[in-house]
Amino acid sequence: MKQFVTITVIGRDKTGVVARVTGFLFEQGANIDALDEQVTRGQFSMAIQASWKAKAWQPERVRDGLQKLAASLGMEIKLRFTEPRRRQRFAIMVTKETHALEAMLAASRAGQLKAKPALVLSNRRELEPLARKHGLPFVVVPWDDRTKAEGEVLRLLDGHEIDFVVLARFMKILSPNFVWRYKNKIINIHPSLLPSFPGPQAYRQAYERGVKIIGVTGHFVTMHLDEGPIIAQGSFAVRPTMSLKDIIAEGQKLESKVLVRAVKLYLNNRLDVYWGIVKEV
Amino acid sequence: MKQFVTITVIGRDKTGVVARVTGFLFEQGANIDALDEQVTRGQFSMAIQASWKAKAWQPERVRDGLQKLAASLGMEIKLRFTEPRRRQRFAIMVTKETHALEAMLAASRAGQLKAKPALVLSNRRELEPLARKHGLPFVVVPWDDRTKAEGEVLRLLDGHEIDFVVLARFMKILSPNFVWRYKNKIINIHPSLLPSFPGPQAYRQAYERGVKIIGVTGHFVTMHLDEGPIIAQGSFAVRPTMSLKDIIAEGQKLESKVLVRAVKLYLNNRLDVYWGIVKEV
Amino acid sequence: MKQFVTITVIGRDKTGVVARVTGFLFEQGANIDALDEQVTRGQFSMAIQASWKAKAWQPERVRDGLQKLAASLGMEIKLRFTEPRRRQRFAIMVTKETHALEAMLAASRAGQLKAKPALVLSNRRELEPLARKHGLPFVVVPWDDRTKAEGEVLRLLDGHEIDFVVLARFMKILSPNFVWRYKNKIINIHPSLLPSFPGPQAYRQAYERGVKIIGVTGHFVTMHLDEGPIIAQGSFAVRPTMSLKDIIAEGQKLESKVLVRAVKLYLNNRLDVYWGIVKEV
Amino acid sequence: MKQFVTITVIGRDKTGVVARVTGFLFEQGANIDALDEQVTRGQFSMAIQASWKAKAWQPERVRDGLQKLAASLGMEIKLRFTEPRRRQRFAIMVTKETHALEAMLAASRAGQLKAKPALVLSNRRELEPLARKHGLPFVVVPWDDRTKAEGEVLRLLDGHEIDFVVLARFMKILSPNFVWRYKNKIINIHPSLLPSFPGPQAYRQAYERGVKIIGVTGHFVTMHLDEGPIIAQGSFAVRPTMSLKDIIAEGQKLESKVLVRAVKLYLNNRLDVYWGIVKEV
Repeated sequence: MKQFVTITVIGRDKTGVVARVTGFLFEQGANIDALDEQVTRGQFSMAIQASWKAKAWQPERVRDGLQKLAASLGMEIKLRFTEPRRRQRFAIMVTKETHALEAMLAASRAGQLKAKPALVLSNRRELEPLARKHGLPFVVVPWDDRTKAEGEVLRLLDGHEIDFVVLARFMKILSPNFVWRYKNKIINIHPSLLPSFPGPQAYRQAYERGVKIIGVTGHFVTMHLDEGPIIAQGSFAVRPTMSLKDIIAEGQKLESKVLVRAVKLYLNNRLDVYWGIVKEV
Repeated sequence: MKQFVTITVIGRDKTGVVARVTGFLFEQGANIDALDEQVTRGQFSMAIQASWKAKAWQPERVRDGLQKLAASLGMEIKLRFTEPRRRQRFAIMVTKETHALEAMLAASRAGQLKAKPALVLSNRRELEPLARKHGLPFVVVPWDDRTKAEGEVLRLLDGHEIDFVVLARFMKILSPNFVWRYKNKIINIHPSLLPSFPGPQAYRQAYERGVKIIGVTGHFVTMHLDEGPIIAQGSFAVRPTMSLKDIIAEGQKLESKVLVRAVKLYLNNRLDVYWGIVKEV
Repeated sequence: MKQFVTITVIGRDKTGVVARVTGFLFEQGANIDALDEQVTRGQFSMAIQASWKAKAWQPERVRDGLQKLAASLGMEIKLRFTEPRRRQRFAIMVTKETHALEAMLAASRAGQLKAKPALVLSNRRELEPLARKHGLPFVVVPWDDRTKAEGEVLRLLDGHEIDFVVLARFMKILSPNFVWRYKNKIINIHPSLLPSFPGPQAYRQAYERGVKIIGVTGHFVTMHLDEGPIIAQGSFAVRPTMSLKDIIAEGQKLESKVLVRAVKLYLNNRLDVYWGIVKEV
Repeated sequence: MKQFVTITVIGRDKTGVVARVTGFLFEQGANIDALDEQVTRGQFSMAIQASWKAKAWQPERVRDGLQKLAASLGMEIKLRFTEPRRRQRFAIMVTKETHALEAMLAASRAGQLKAKPALVLSNRRELEPLARKHGLPFVVVPWDDRTKAEGEVLRLLDGHEIDFVVLARFMKILSPNFVWRYKNKIINIHPSLLPSFPGPQAYRQAYERGVKIIGVTGHFVTMHLDEGPIIAQGSFAVRPTMSLKDIIAEGQKLESKVLVRAVKLYLNNRLDVYWGIVKEV
């Protein structure tokens, strides 16, 4: 049994930050599973994935220690983890299509996920009733100004103690600055067999290109649109009689299935992600 | 029962060629199923797909008439068709991989194709024994000079009365000037789910991209590399334990199957090809 | 001096249509410059580009003859040409961006084009004042139902005797069924150096990919999105200090210039279009 | 004045490696500029870019300390840096094209580079005379077995104390396992305006696609083929009379120029590389 933790550190660059943060974690008994650090234009940013043996994990001490470090370094340090006693919590971001959100909520309700949905976010109003019906808070974040919108979303994710994010047909593009903070913790469903047909209009493009096999892709979101590590894919054969409408209908069913499958794989903690690809271990 | 015929007309542009050729065909009772004509830099080129009701089809009269027209126009006119009593004949172009050629020969031997292989062409020597074992002529056409090579291939196809061409892992790219003469009559198998991973190294690219579904595509060859109308596709799921070698092995089996399936679909004369896509009718 | 003409023939397939139409044109002294014909699912469609020596051109006789043919065949035949005494007329299709429309109107006003704008079409209202200011009719065609919208546009193009169409940042995708009727007569400006960054959001994608040279492409529209034959391209170097906003500003200026240049090249009648590419002759 | 250093650490995963290595570097007065660490299937790998103020830099102490750490951790630790008194040293990898190698050697000879070529590597023999003429060691590494070949190259780079690598038309693909060790230290020149036309045959593809602007790209090599961060690009207009041969000739001249420019930008230490893009600072 392991406790998994994510730590982000952001601020003006100074000497020794990596050593001090990782040294502290080491003293506390952590193992560092992945670490990305860079300095760009004097701005220091670091994301750490760490883990503790469950019995060695003392959240208060770690949090206190990091807060002191943050104060001493003059930097912002965020600690995200899930209490061993509670399930992971996820946010679902949507726009207006119903099926993917419904599938996630149904899977959760059926006890198929080792995590629980805690928040639904959207750039539009349409899906509010569906979220409310399942007893979930629903927040509309208008997307006219992306920087402002993403700031608001980050606050909401923190406020609701969100561990990871599921994009269930969310039609806006998240910026590198947002994605970076949730590395390999944002899962999207895209309606094509990537790398074919990135971008919007994927079914229409597939249809007009005359492909005979159409599919969908569940993947981690990275800073490059529709290029993140692929977790799961599904496909179906295009029958000669199928119209674009038929294809979209069959595709959307598959989106629901593959998105749920990708989230399950993710929750099993059995995915290695490296060099842009996902391997089940 | 219908007799299908292809006619190509090439030469210096002059007025009235389309009218005279199509007028002649009309008098002879043909229906014109498709016609492409263009004049580029004074060069006239036209490809006609025509058909006759079997009993109205008089090959000698059509051939004689077209020869007279050619003489009168000072142009080259080629007539290609299959005697109603004989099966269509196809050439197989290969480089050095064995599986696709073997599959085509096996399907033919098993009586699964309404056509027979009549010639194997290659830019290399390796597959000569395999072709000979099946009693087929095998000709090596070196590919150092593409224009020369394609001229030689065109002569061979004419000499062997070839109706259509199957590229069974032929690794050279055919020029527009060649492809044009066999519009929708050259079938290729490509080792990816096009439009993903065009070009060589498709399995390696798919593997290194970490896709979870890999496939192959049987398609007509057009002047744009790996962009021709798609006839058939097949796919398989990538299991976590599969190496690149495993993927290639499974992929090659699928190439064989999908290539044979594409040729069968083609031979059933039930494919509409338009706007860059193939529809079964 | 030549008279260029486009003829489209559409209807239920029957024997002899190509021969009868081309035979008639031959009798009238036409040369056929390009001809595409196909039969799909019993539907016959043919587009002919023909030309006459100016002094041999008798529009009434050609029109009358084609009308009689249409009646006799039970098909729809459309003849489009420009009176030798009048300039070609073009429609401009727009959505809401101003710069490309303005550039076309300014070039026209400055006498730089051997053609005149005769109609502005849009799926939105915003640009109506600009069109009206230049004394041009402006028609809004809502795009909720593409088939209906395109039918309406076709009627408008016919009614205004439009010879060719310029898409000046028109943000909807035209269907194959529309495009087919105006083969190599619809010119679009796309904000990237195609084939890089097709689709919407091209500047953003280029910016986020970090390319150092950004450009725009004027091209003929075909049934495959952003893949038509390229007429003209322009580019600029991305300076380190440029924001996305700066790039869009510089890009839009270039769009205007390259679109005008593409239209000029087109009007000079010196473009060969074949095998998907454009050559100046 | 700063001393830049790269450290790679590879071995079986164990707790505390990051902290011990970074803690040691901190004690020695280093600043950590970038750090990538990951554990995949029990394999730990970490690449650190660090820097010292020149006067605080004590190479013997750092090397000794890292060797002791390596022994104590049972891991391989590599330290790469350039003596403050000596110029950076680079290897040039080539296949058989002459121009890019010649341009690099000429730029070096003309004193335009703050670095010196120290080794030429190739998978073929052809360019040996050229390298020898410039007094450079030339080593042929056959590429039949990539893993073996890359192991040999890594040994050679270490043996010749190479700081960074220039791919001057090297036609083989380097594996992630190789590239990872020289993150943002391998510079390639690709003969297209990426992301258009990745892969081999880029000029031919551009020519057959009919683009009107052709270019080349100098970029860092990452594990995804032709997708690394772009350092510099150059372009030229395709004139109507240019043949493919003309385009290649003009393109190769540009390759030489842009490759040299990319290396100069790199050596000026003014490039930020993050989120897959390069920014000059």
